Amino acid sequence: MIDLRSDTVTKPDEAMRTAARDAEVGDDVYGEDPTVNELETRVADVLGFDDALLVPSGTMGNQVAVRTHTDRGQEAIVERESHVYKWELGGVAQHSGVQARPVDGDDRGVVAPGRVREAFVEADGHRAGTGLLALENTHNSKGGTAIAPDAIDAAAGVAHERDVPVHLDGARLFNAAAALDTPAERLAREADSAMVCLSKGLGAPVGSVLAGSEGFVERARRHRKLMGGGMRQAGILAAPGLRALENRDRLAADHERARRLAAGLDAAPGLSAPEPETNIVVAETDDPADEVVAACEREGVGCVAFGEYRVRFCTHWDIDDEDIDAALSGVERALS
Amino acid sequence: MIDLRSDTVTKPDEAMRTAARDAEVGDDVYGEDPTVNELETRVADVLGFDDALLVPSGTMGNQVAVRTHTDRGQEAIVERESHVYKWELGGVAQHSGVQARPVDGDDRGVVAPGRVREAFVEADGHRAGTGLLALENTHNSKGGTAIAPDAIDAAAGVAHERDVPVHLDGARLFNAAAALDTPAERLAREADSAMVCLSKGLGAPVGSVLAGSEGFVERARRHRKLMGGGMRQAGILAAPGLRALENRDRLAADHERARRLAAGLDAAPGLSAPEPETNIVVAETDDPADEVVAACEREGVGCVAFGEYRVRFCTHWDIDDEDIDAALSGVERALS
Amino acid sequence: MIDLRSDTVTKPDEAMRTAARDAEVGDDVYGEDPTVNELETRVADVLGFDDALLVPSGTMGNQVAVRTHTDRGQEAIVERESHVYKWELGGVAQHSGVQARPVDGDDRGVVAPGRVREAFVEADGHRAGTGLLALENTHNSKGGTAIAPDAIDAAAGVAHERDVPVHLDGARLFNAAAALDTPAERLAREADSAMVCLSKGLGAPVGSVLAGSEGFVERARRHRKLMGGGMRQAGILAAPGLRALENRDRLAADHERARRLAAGLDAAPGLSAPEPETNIVVAETDDPADEVVAACEREGVGCVAFGEYRVRFCTHWDIDDEDIDAALSGVERALS
Amino acid sequence: MIDLRSDTVTKPDEAMRTAARDAEVGDDVYGEDPTVNELETRVADVLGFDDALLVPSGTMGNQVAVRTHTDRGQEAIVERESHVYKWELGGVAQHSGVQARPVDGDDRGVVAPGRVREAFVEADGHRAGTGLLALENTHNSKGGTAIAPDAIDAAAGVAHERDVPVHLDGARLFNAAAALDTPAERLAREADSAMVCLSKGLGAPVGSVLAGSEGFVERARRHRKLMGGGMRQAGILAAPGLRALENRDRLAADHERARRLAAGLDAAPGLSAPEPETNIVVAETDDPADEVVAACEREGVGCVAFGEYRVRFCTHWDIDDEDIDAALSGVERALS
Repeated sequence: MIDLRSDTVTKPDEAMRTAARDAEVGDDVYGEDPTVNELETRVADVLGFDDALLVPSGTMGNQVAVRTHTDRGQEAIVERESHVYKWELGGVAQHSGVQARPVDGDDRGVVAPGRVREAFVEADGHRAGTGLLALENTHNSKGGTAIAPDAIDAAAGVAHERDVPVHLDGARLFNAAAALDTPAERLAREADSAMVCLSKGLGAPVGSVLAGSEGFVERARRHRKLMGGGMRQAGILAAPGLRALENRDRLAADHERARRLAAGLDAAPGLSAPEPETNIVVAETDDPADEVVAACEREGVGCVAFGEYRVRFCTHWDIDDEDIDAALSGVERALS
Repeated sequence: MIDLRSDTVTKPDEAMRTAARDAEVGDDVYGEDPTVNELETRVADVLGFDDALLVPSGTMGNQVAVRTHTDRGQEAIVERESHVYKWELGGVAQHSGVQARPVDGDDRGVVAPGRVREAFVEADGHRAGTGLLALENTHNSKGGTAIAPDAIDAAAGVAHERDVPVHLDGARLFNAAAALDTPAERLAREADSAMVCLSKGLGAPVGSVLAGSEGFVERARRHRKLMGGGMRQAGILAAPGLRALENRDRLAADHERARRLAAGLDAAPGLSAPEPETNIVVAETDDPADEVVAACEREGVGCVAFGEYRVRFCTHWDIDDEDIDAALSGVERALS
Repeated sequence: MIDLRSDTVTKPDEAMRTAARDAEVGDDVYGEDPTVNELETRVADVLGFDDALLVPSGTMGNQVAVRTHTDRGQEAIVERESHVYKWELGGVAQHSGVQARPVDGDDRGVVAPGRVREAFVEADGHRAGTGLLALENTHNSKGGTAIAPDAIDAAAGVAHERDVPVHLDGARLFNAAAALDTPAERLAREADSAMVCLSKGLGAPVGSVLAGSEGFVERARRHRKLMGGGMRQAGILAAPGLRALENRDRLAADHERARRLAAGLDAAPGLSAPEPETNIVVAETDDPADEVVAACEREGVGCVAFGEYRVRFCTHWDIDDEDIDAALSGVERALS
Repeated sequence: MIDLRSDTVTKPDEAMRTAARDAEVGDDVYGEDPTVNELETRVADVLGFDDALLVPSGTMGNQVAVRTHTDRGQEAIVERESHVYKWELGGVAQHSGVQARPVDGDDRGVVAPGRVREAFVEADGHRAGTGLLALENTHNSKGGTAIAPDAIDAAAGVAHERDVPVHLDGARLFNAAAALDTPAERLAREADSAMVCLSKGLGAPVGSVLAGSEGFVERARRHRKLMGGGMRQAGILAAPGLRALENRDRLAADHERARRLAAGLDAAPGLSAPEPETNIVVAETDDPADEVVAACEREGVGCVAFGEYRVRFCTHWDIDDEDIDAALSGVERALS
């Protein structure tokens, strides 16, 4: 099975496994796990923030961020197809009592500054005021688009003029950085917090990190506990996470493979796949997506339905050039 | 002051005041206020439901409905400019832990069936499923548009095919009924609950009524208590409310006056006002709305900003033909 | 039927009814109802606060107070048998996300300062900190006990030393004031907010008032809107409410009648009733309370079960000396 | 430093570390991590349930359980000193909108059946009904008391008669099983769900497991995702967790050491320590607990304040007989 369903399916390599085994650990609830502390410092540095917090999942990272930035009864401006709005079980309402105000990004998921301006709500006696702008980069649902720093800055600028903080869901921020050949720090420059996942393209088994100012992280730590994300000898996760951080320069190869995969898929009958910007290929299908996915699976290729006539394929850590060839053959068999 | 800010500013007439004085009352928390019971039965009949519940405001009626129809963690499809989403302090998230999924209605606030279809979410491990479709008629923010029964039915039909209940915010449903010359019952036919306000066009001092099935109203009664809407000798409100219900056939005159007002405003320099469908006139302004509102106020005409370059005028119970003439003169003076 | 179930069953008299009819009204959502404004000012004065807010029920008054004083995730210290904890559908958790920390009052519902001290929680990484102390006077579930100012002050003092605000549920505060021959203002002196009901002993048909500092009331107004308590021409309720306020000096007569009732009940076979402090008589019963209540009802006396072997009788506005005689005869028949 | 602060500070041994390195893993969000699946099956077997779910912390396990068993607006009966009520940031209110109804356990934290009976609330128009009984075994705050199966069964029986489900916080359930020489399954027999921690006495680095019926676990999985507890290649945690499960028969040795420690502490001046039932020793101190803790720390012994004049010491996996001797010498030096 060539598993292109998601970049979350990656398995840790020997280096990560060895790192887990050899990790120096302590009780992170007491703040005493040196490997966790090292990872948090490291990610804060890479993203240009004061401090950071290890969390067990990207969802927790996002939800803790929403809760930490907002008061109950505020609104959060979110892109309509963003993960925090679409794939987190309505957590914005549930954890924070915050009303989502989705805006439409463009084809690539870019939120134009004008959209933020329009969506902004001044609190009054009848209206919950805007308490947060959440952005996502790369934008998963739009096909892993790598959004340029200027676009992020522009949307964030409108928010900041209105004293609204900005959270960046950077589950795949390092993919964006690689694609744009820009430091991740630059991409997060105008954000007040950013979350990155170690367990997607970077290949770590488990773990995401939420970065922000010192005060933000201090408050976020309490919300992490509330959600049950306080872990004990979490260095066993942080150690492969630190190792995974070194994989950032391998992401460009995933992107190259994704482009080759897309070209091949686009040439297949009944499929149309634009050139991807990072590691996510979204193909339009003539047949219903569910059928295409099932047929591919029978031919040993894993992919997921991403709409009624759209299928997603991800390249990642465990996929090499030969896998791409084999996947293309499989898909071709599946569709013929 | 000719007060066209809202149809909520109406003052009760002698008949309503006398009804309040003479109301037979009891303790409605024990279900023993005969006038409240009569009003609830009456509104249920008029709207074609089994039962109904008096609430102190339209906001409570809507929020109790959302809470009663949904489970925490579901989504509610709402029109982007609807009252329940825009003007109720994010109550959908706060009272019900429900994530709003706003869809764009057309220019008149009509939600096309296709929009409901697109917005529907099947619950799964990552997605909060759709638990409610909320519609509004007349649509306040779109200028009091009276939405035809077929349009309501079509949107509701899509929801029902997916076992999603439908709530109708009918704060001004009787205006829609008058404008369309259709019984209110017909407009609510495909809804699973409907809320109507007695304190807007009908002129009652206080009170809205939420109607639905017997089981729905029983559960809603508990949520009304939770929100603090259980009142004691509420017959003192229900009595003028019953009297106000008789004012339904006077609404057509408000609409006629609104048309005359709109025509006059449209002729004024710096204003453009399309023909209204009911009692709400929304004029586009050349100057900033705040300035126009302030200038009108100085000339004794009350209206409200309804966007940066839009001003709303409402006709109602307390406005007669001469008031319209006087208002038009006042606006003309204000703008010259 | 001599209805002693509750002092909420009172019917407005002619003066209140006339006041409702003649009320000068306006749209209170715009702050323009002069009678509401007068009532709010008046109650604020009587209670010694800056400002006040009319709400449709005592439950809403309490819940708005809890929400306004606290942040989500804090704790509220409440007496175990208090109304806000026991009879408001868990609203403290639901509206405010606040964890109740009930403490045991003494037999009369007095919360000893030591209990507040023990229950106080300093916020840390694992513990929600205390955000509110709620007290109740008179204490309904303990039989309408009138708690002396010193006792209120002592508990409040412990809270204030820890920067915890104090809310006083004074649904029947004027009964306490009458019983203790102390101004209500004195009873509320150490509270940061107080709620009084006009619709209990004072006899108004509907309405409670929440008083506090200017800033508190401003924030509370928003929470009232959130819960759906913003009403339009609410002067129709405020006018009888103002009239009801004048009934404060009649409460002593209710208390006198309650004492006479208790003495009579205590003499009845199978009942034991201590002398009441205000207008609430709680009798212990040899037979199950439900049976006693049913038997009394058959003999034309209304009362309510208040535990498995306890029955509550309330005197009020609509009960005169002859009613007490008749009630005692009815109970005697019921129990023989 | 001899670290007796908590049994959560244990470091994984070589076997666990090797297990982490060699774990067969997959994406657990897809249900494809064989090691996680094995652990979940294993724990379900050990506890006598159909199915189970790995969560990153005991707090998440408890909070997911509360949420899964209840509807918003219900009440949960909890022991006043229990972890779920005291140490989880008010999560019962925040995650579930559930009002806590704490009851007093006896000196050992045993909740008498009569207490459950008294605390039970039948839902009605004013009262949130009871939706859950939560028990804890061993009871941490009462000093690691091992509660006998009959006591658990008796309290649970009262709940079940009223159709109220029972959750067992078994963070240290295996300590209770060892102390009572009873299978853990027997202790959980009358519970509808149970949570056990692998990261306390058993010594795993991270992880707790929530067990229940098939339907319960299916719903719990969704709530785990909501709280951000869905992890990817979580086998890296499950593998040492499986290994840690084998440590159950080592717990008796921890208990033996705790008894020896308590005897020694009791003999020290200014300390009084009753014989512990499991691995938690709570000593009463003559001097303020904070001072005692600080003094011990200076002498190389870690312990924690557990009240103003109480200090907790835990034995665990990383503490051997010599450590007990050294700890006792250190404490003696500290106190002299």
